[in-house]
Amino acid sequence: MRATMINGTRDVTVEELPRPQIEAPTDALLKVVAACVCGSDLWHYRGVIPTQHSHQMGHEYVGIIEELGSEVTGLEVGQFVVGSFITSDNTCEICQAGYQSKCVNAHGVGTAQAEYVRITNAAGTLVPTPEHPDEDLIPSLLAASDVLGTGWFGAVEAQAGPGKTIAVVGDGAVGLLAILAAKQLGAERIIAFSRHADRQVLARGFGATDIIEERGDKGVAKLKELTDGLGAHGVVEAVGTQESIEQGLRCARGGGYLTILGVAHGVQLSGREIFGAEVHIVAGGAPVRRFLPELIQLILDRKINPGRVFTMDVPLEEAPAAYAAMDERTTIKALLRP
Amino acid sequence: MRATMINGTRDVTVEELPRPQIEAPTDALLKVVAACVCGSDLWHYRGVIPTQHSHQMGHEYVGIIEELGSEVTGLEVGQFVVGSFITSDNTCEICQAGYQSKCVNAHGVGTAQAEYVRITNAAGTLVPTPEHPDEDLIPSLLAASDVLGTGWFGAVEAQAGPGKTIAVVGDGAVGLLAILAAKQLGAERIIAFSRHADRQVLARGFGATDIIEERGDKGVAKLKELTDGLGAHGVVEAVGTQESIEQGLRCARGGGYLTILGVAHGVQLSGREIFGAEVHIVAGGAPVRRFLPELIQLILDRKINPGRVFTMDVPLEEAPAAYAAMDERTTIKALLRP
Repeated sequence: MRATMINGTRDVTVEELPRPQIEAPTDALLKVVAACVCGSDLWHYRGVIPTQHSHQMGHEYVGIIEELGSEVTGLEVGQFVVGSFITSDNTCEICQAGYQSKCVNAHGVGTAQAEYVRITNAAGTLVPTPEHPDEDLIPSLLAASDVLGTGWFGAVEAQAGPGKTIAVVGDGAVGLLAILAAKQLGAERIIAFSRHADRQVLARGFGATDIIEERGDKGVAKLKELTDGLGAHGVVEAVGTQESIEQGLRCARGGGYLTILGVAHGVQLSGREIFGAEVHIVAGGAPVRRFLPELIQLILDRKINPGRVFTMDVPLEEAPAAYAAMDERTTIKALLRP
Repeated sequence: MRATMINGTRDVTVEELPRPQIEAPTDALLKVVAACVCGSDLWHYRGVIPTQHSHQMGHEYVGIIEELGSEVTGLEVGQFVVGSFITSDNTCEICQAGYQSKCVNAHGVGTAQAEYVRITNAAGTLVPTPEHPDEDLIPSLLAASDVLGTGWFGAVEAQAGPGKTIAVVGDGAVGLLAILAAKQLGAERIIAFSRHADRQVLARGFGATDIIEERGDKGVAKLKELTDGLGAHGVVEAVGTQESIEQGLRCARGGGYLTILGVAHGVQLSGREIFGAEVHIVAGGAPVRRFLPELIQLILDRKINPGRVFTMDVPLEEAPAAYAAMDERTTIKALLRP
């Protein structure tokens, strides 16, 4: 089968590899319908996470079940399914509390930019659609597997809801979909930080009520102006750098909430600043599985259209160009079709 | 009047100072009935926070209203009142959300180890008892002004409640009273870290079900053993060092909660570790005012006895000995009577 490999900094290729096999009785083998390039893939691409040996890439996927391990229940060969980037049994105490990304049997996905992908913990991870979805819904369903689920988690943890002012730091796909999520959850005011005209249009389309172009402490000052000096009730941080996380923390009011959705290496949070801020902070990989049934339904009902973040849609063979476009920020998010 | 002064590292004296005056129409002047030495006072005493110029000390107090500013409503001269270490208007949006410690008009108290103390934001800060309380309740009411209120906040934010396992790092007064709070809030299991026999007794008396003597990663391993490898649902950290905060973070399960109640200078939290832990973290000075009415009632009804943390009860003149005893950990907490 054809699969995307990373070999070093800015060195992505598409190669012929053996098709994966069922290894454990709880595995599923999917024929990938669509995969995509994630902002977090760029940590590898840019060499921030060094690549020691060539390896496959990809953790976002929708596909058709090709084969099931002998112990997988609740799924059938031929179903269209959406999964997430961390597989989970969905039965342990941590999963039952809604934190499937910290499942006691959690397992990362890393080989989805390919024709076929093996998914562990299949029964707890994959959510089937009632029937094969319309073609035009594929991008939105794919978004659910990571960027929508992650943005949604960010907005939920930031306590987005009626009467609330939510700020979103970062205008990548996750930040943009956190805006969509905050809007769906009923937030009264959604303040987006963005300095790119095309992303501002999408931000407003998803529900942003205010746009701030300034960054860092200037951006914080602007946000304070818009919120009677108090700051936002909740902030979703979707960049992951020292600067953006500090900006996010400083945008939240005392007693408010900050969700950190991405963290680069080397970020350090000052204990004094966290203590002085008195903001509820949670960071981590989103438990997308918690939200998948609800998100899939919203998409099938055409109530949300998160697939708009895919501004590039190319065959898998063009993965190198897709990575380059993401890196250069000439596309928001690139969809790959095997 | 007589008042406690700090002049440098381990240099505390009691001096004659002018009696404070009402300065703003929202002030109250209290005749202090009891004050005490706080663990956080030791940051100054030990020189961790350097003393540039001699200054008064003390932020925990109960007293009798001696005089009121012209705009203070809801209080009367002669009433017995309990306040907290941060004064607040209790009317702004932040106060109304329950985070009075981040009130837009917040003001710190720092002169309470004295015969008289001026309290700003009096109407929003001071909570009167229906009548002058019995003498034996004074220590418990004094505890409410900081260590009980702080421990209570810690337990509330750690989501202490029925079915929950709560861990408490730190066996000072705040840690011990976080145990009492977790018990009152209905926690099923309360795991206390303590290696001092006398404090273990108090911890068990307040509701601890398990005691772990090990610290650091050995302590974490022990806690994991006691919790099926998962960690506690919620952790209250009541020390404030790099080591104790990391211990607290590692004791919480994925999706769990950590309240950090004290922070020393120089503490840095690793972004990678926070991201990997996926624990809800909040740090800050407790909004004691939120809990005061409820805590005062529990004390007057003799349902809780937080005053047991005062293992030293001396006249104000003995403040130097009280600081030394706290520093040497020969007493848990020292009460001062002006």
